Amino acid sequence: MRMSELSRRSGTSVTTIKYYIREGLLPPGRQTAATQAEYDEQHLRRLRLIRALVGVRGLSVSAARDVLNALAEQTGDTHVVLGLALGAIRLAEEPAADSPETAEVDDLVKELGWNVHEAAPARAALAETLTSLRTLGAPLHWRTLLPYAHLAEQTASVDLDQLDGIEDPLELAERALLLTVLLEPALLALRRMAQENESARRHGEH
Amino acid sequence: MRMSELSRRSGTSVTTIKYYIREGLLPPGRQTAATQAEYDEQHLRRLRLIRALVGVRGLSVSAARDVLNALAEQTGDTHVVLGLALGAIRLAEEPAADSPETAEVDDLVKELGWNVHEAAPARAALAETLTSLRTLGAPLHWRTLLPYAHLAEQTASVDLDQLDGIEDPLELAERALLLTVLLEPALLALRRMAQENESARRHGEH
Repeated sequence: MRMSELSRRSGTSVTTIKYYIREGLLPPGRQTAATQAEYDEQHLRRLRLIRALVGVRGLSVSAARDVLNALAEQTGDTHVVLGLALGAIRLAEEPAADSPETAEVDDLVKELGWNVHEAAPARAALAETLTSLRTLGAPLHWRTLLPYAHLAEQTASVDLDQLDGIEDPLELAERALLLTVLLEPALLALRRMAQENESARRHGEH
Repeated sequence: MRMSELSRRSGTSVTTIKYYIREGLLPPGRQTAATQAEYDEQHLRRLRLIRALVGVRGLSVSAARDVLNALAEQTGDTHVVLGLALGAIRLAEEPAADSPETAEVDDLVKELGWNVHEAAPARAALAETLTSLRTLGAPLHWRTLLPYAHLAEQTASVDLDQLDGIEDPLELAERALLLTVLLEPALLALRRMAQENESARRHGEH
C-alpha cells in the first residue's frame, strides 16, 4: 500500500509516520520510484503497536524504540513479549527504593507464591500505595490485600484468555497493551458500580 | 485540645485549618479565652475527612463543603453516606452524554441486575473507556466485560466488609474514601503482578 493508505488505515498522520521512520521506529517502505514507496501489513501492525506504546502507555519515542528493538529479538518467547509490552520486565534494571512497605510486598508475593520479577514496577507501585495509606493515618496490613490478590489472579486469567491464539508477536504486544492499560479505567468503574450495588443491597434502597 | 495539637494529630498546618474554618468546612472551636479555642475529637475526624475529600478525591474546597453539608443531613443512612463520599450519587444531576456505548453500559447493568443510579459517574467513565477502545481500533463488546463485572462484585463485597461496624458517619465516609480511592493503584498493581505470574505459568519460566 502507499503511504496515504497506511496513514488512513492506522489513523496516523503522514507527518507522524515520516517522523517514526526517521527516528528508526518504523522501517522504510520498499522504494518503487524516486518519490514513492510501498508499505505492507507488517508496517501497519508495527505502527499500531507504536501508537499503543506512545499514546496509550505514554512512552517517549526513544523508549518505544528500545521496546520495539527488544521485541524484535524475542519474538519466539510469548512470556518475554508480554513482559516487555506490559512493562513487567524493565529494559534497564533500577533498584527499588527501600522502605518497610517494600518488605511487606515481598511478604505478600511470597505468601501468594507468585512468580514476579524483583524489579517489576508494579511491586514499587504497590509499596508506594501502602506508604501513602500509612502517611494518611490509614495503615493497611499486607494480609488485608490477600482477598484482593486472589481476585487479581482470576482477573489476570481472564486477561490472558483474551490473548489466546494470537500468534503474531507484534499483534500480541499491541493487544496486550490495549487490553491492559485501557481496561484499567473500565475495571475501576466496574468496582465503583459494584460498590454502589452492594451498598444498596446491604444498607438500603435507592 | 488546642489548635496546635489538632494540627499535629491531623497532619494539617495551622494556616490550612484556619482557612477551612473561614470557608465554613470546619466549625470554629469553643472559645476559652480571647485568643484561645478548644477543639475536640469531632473536629479531628472532620478534618481527616476534609483532607480525604480534597487531597485524595481531589475535590475543590467548595465541592467538599457541599459534600460535608449533605453528609450532615444524611447521617442516619449508611447507603447515602457511602454514596456521597464515593461520588456514586451526584449533588447536582448532569445528563450523561449520549453515545452507543452509554446504551451498552445500560445493557451490561441490566444483565447484571445491578442497582446503580442512572447518573452515577462510573457509568459515564465506563462508556468513555469503551469509546476509547473503539477509536483505537480495538472495540470491546460489553459481554466481554461480564467476567470482570462478576469479579468486581466480589471485590466490592471485600470493600464493604472493611467498613463493617463503623458507626460514626464522618469516620465511615473518611474510611470509605481512603479505601476506595487510595486502594485503586494497589488493585491495578496487583493485577499487573498477577498477569506476570499467569504469563509465566502459561508461557514460560523466568
